[in-house]
Amino acid sequence: MLVTTLLRKKRDGGTLQQDEIEYLIDAYCRGDVTEYQMSAFAMAVAIRGMDPVETATLTRAMLGSGKLLQRPDRGDPLKAERPRVDKHSTGGLGDKVSLILAPLLAVCDLDVPMISGRGLGSTGGTLDKLESIAGFQTQFEADQLDRILADCGAFIASATEHIAPADQKLYALRDVTGTVESVPLITASILSKKLAANLDALVMDVKVGHAGFMKTPERALELAKSLVRVGGEAGLPTTAWLTDMDQPLGEAVGNAIEVNESVEVLQGASGAVRDLTIELCADLLVRTKVANDLESARSILAQRLDSGLAMERFERMVVAQGGKLTGTLPLAATHPILAPQQGYLSHFDCAAIGDAVVCLGGGRRKVGDRIDHQVGIRVHGRIGDFFEKSQPVMTLHCSATQAEQYSKLLADSFSLSSQSVEPRPLVLERLGIPDPE
Amino acid sequence: MLVTTLLRKKRDGGTLQQDEIEYLIDAYCRGDVTEYQMSAFAMAVAIRGMDPVETATLTRAMLGSGKLLQRPDRGDPLKAERPRVDKHSTGGLGDKVSLILAPLLAVCDLDVPMISGRGLGSTGGTLDKLESIAGFQTQFEADQLDRILADCGAFIASATEHIAPADQKLYALRDVTGTVESVPLITASILSKKLAANLDALVMDVKVGHAGFMKTPERALELAKSLVRVGGEAGLPTTAWLTDMDQPLGEAVGNAIEVNESVEVLQGASGAVRDLTIELCADLLVRTKVANDLESARSILAQRLDSGLAMERFERMVVAQGGKLTGTLPLAATHPILAPQQGYLSHFDCAAIGDAVVCLGGGRRKVGDRIDHQVGIRVHGRIGDFFEKSQPVMTLHCSATQAEQYSKLLADSFSLSSQSVEPRPLVLERLGIPDPE
Repeated sequence: MLVTTLLRKKRDGGTLQQDEIEYLIDAYCRGDVTEYQMSAFAMAVAIRGMDPVETATLTRAMLGSGKLLQRPDRGDPLKAERPRVDKHSTGGLGDKVSLILAPLLAVCDLDVPMISGRGLGSTGGTLDKLESIAGFQTQFEADQLDRILADCGAFIASATEHIAPADQKLYALRDVTGTVESVPLITASILSKKLAANLDALVMDVKVGHAGFMKTPERALELAKSLVRVGGEAGLPTTAWLTDMDQPLGEAVGNAIEVNESVEVLQGASGAVRDLTIELCADLLVRTKVANDLESARSILAQRLDSGLAMERFERMVVAQGGKLTGTLPLAATHPILAPQQGYLSHFDCAAIGDAVVCLGGGRRKVGDRIDHQVGIRVHGRIGDFFEKSQPVMTLHCSATQAEQYSKLLADSFSLSSQSVEPRPLVLERLGIPDPE
Repeated sequence: MLVTTLLRKKRDGGTLQQDEIEYLIDAYCRGDVTEYQMSAFAMAVAIRGMDPVETATLTRAMLGSGKLLQRPDRGDPLKAERPRVDKHSTGGLGDKVSLILAPLLAVCDLDVPMISGRGLGSTGGTLDKLESIAGFQTQFEADQLDRILADCGAFIASATEHIAPADQKLYALRDVTGTVESVPLITASILSKKLAANLDALVMDVKVGHAGFMKTPERALELAKSLVRVGGEAGLPTTAWLTDMDQPLGEAVGNAIEVNESVEVLQGASGAVRDLTIELCADLLVRTKVANDLESARSILAQRLDSGLAMERFERMVVAQGGKLTGTLPLAATHPILAPQQGYLSHFDCAAIGDAVVCLGGGRRKVGDRIDHQVGIRVHGRIGDFFEKSQPVMTLHCSATQAEQYSKLLADSFSLSSQSVEPRPLVLERLGIPDPE
């Protein structure tokens, strides 16, 4: 098989066959297909697309480049088998749901083997946030991950070299060749890793809005449909939620500051973060038959948060991963951003807020950049909230020099309206069968 | 400037600005843009295309990556300045026009600094053919090329490292990434090299048909229009001829065998090769005002061929390039392919004939393959010609083993019809202003 023949076929809008896609991925892993050939392929797919069958084939080929996490209890009649589930978000400002969801589901008789990533060109990823906790480790061998999962019912760690290595190579390449924003490539990248975790159910949180990965509702919907369809075809029942990303999720944006907010939610605090976490978890509880319906699922989840059980499990997981929580994590000095006049919060420039956090040192510009865990931003309201003149709308955590440098930018990153403003719904749509209600 | 931003722009069908294209090519030559980024760019352009302004900018940027051949006589009132011209063909089976055209124009008071290439995935290129001549060299420094041109009025040599180096890098990359067949990339590749030769006029021979580079008349026309338009915009008056490539040009296909046929034409032989060469040359003679009209141009050219003047100049050029012609070049043993029944030649499978020559060793499968100059095929007729049963339609020049292996394939590479068949026109269309008639 000639790789240039496959490249020309996709270039001209053709449909690749199973053996062609498998050859391409195998040869790429072996080094027989070069990086420059693979980047040409990624660009052709980014422009020409792939149909659901091609996308499912690509997903399976990337999965097949590595190994599955084992399910040692499966089929052993002496052990009670716990359903294995996960959530994946396309990423958004202040999205710390994973930190709460993993231990919360673990105390609801589900196992959550969460393979997570680091942030690039945005605020830190889930692993970066957790590394704010002294001693917290993210890199483990497969047998260590098995032990943590058996002990805690959850882990949040980085992919081993055996998890879909083709995806790890291709992802790094897409990042530097302008081929990240492609529905089939995103689908195959996410699902190959989730299939490698050997899950029974997956819930996808697809963010919609300016601060999300998919800028328009149409593109977000396209991705959500692709994930549900290809996940289902590959044997992983998947639902996808379209959720709002035109404002930060919760108050905290940064790393340590987001761990602190997560701990507050794990200790019973209310708000958007708790609400969204409960919705996503309830979906998984019903689908795995741990709860009979969404209403009872929500009440189980609320009880696990309010009782402190989920917090306890979070602390156990942190210890199992080498860390120790000793109260609120320290943050950099505070500098308030005041409302210039009274009014209702009507708009956030999420890109500007995200960029500011990266500039403060809370995110990466390029692979390998060090993260300053103590910087961040606290946003004191959501769209629709009323502020008096000179009331703090945001609080920066950073040095005095940085505050001077970035206060103006952040003061311009929100708008106050004299007219009252409707709050935005948190969840826009849910896709996937069976519907839990 | 971020290269991923440019890649995303072209991926989404946008138009690149001059500074963006210049940055890309400069950074590619410096090594700041990698091969995998450039291959993603080539794929995006192959699919999304480029408008004429973008294509002209890309052409100039690739030209600017190297140096121009000098015109030492230009502006010197003591020296008669000879117009400098060239012809370029998109390549086809048996196309040996360059070997005849260069010395023929040189004896019509034109300079022909012909930068030529080698064959890949097809029968040999012009340089491969000329290397059938013992001692013939193709690699020279710029000052050596100047001296040969001053002495002979023509050279046929490979590009120095200073001729559009960006194109040399990009061309090698396109070959292995399925991005060869792109009108803007072909245009920029051809014209950047021709502009580097500092020409006054260029004639393009765009082949149409199954054995050509552009398979359909529509694609060939698109390329021809692009070459004429972008050549004109970049200051190189260009005409483009669409010529038939549904059958070999002339009788000989191979290397030494094509030099032999070229020598026959240079000694006055008639046929399609002479006819097409005269048409292309006449275009250049009129455009450079060496002749007043096509009719007188054709008669000058016929005289230069029939008198032996062109042949004498060819021999002088061969000597200047280190070679020596001592009569007909030796070929491998002959094996006839006979007509299975009587009939009119109605069809050639040119791809099969080309592949056969490559298989015999007369072309390359990959860069660096050695060429066997003595193998080849002589085709004894053109479409429309009548053959008696058992009359030779082709003669193979190869070993007995090869003849056994490939005779069947070549016997299937042509069709004979019981009905009479119209001969095909040699020239389909001519584009470019001013029209010489």
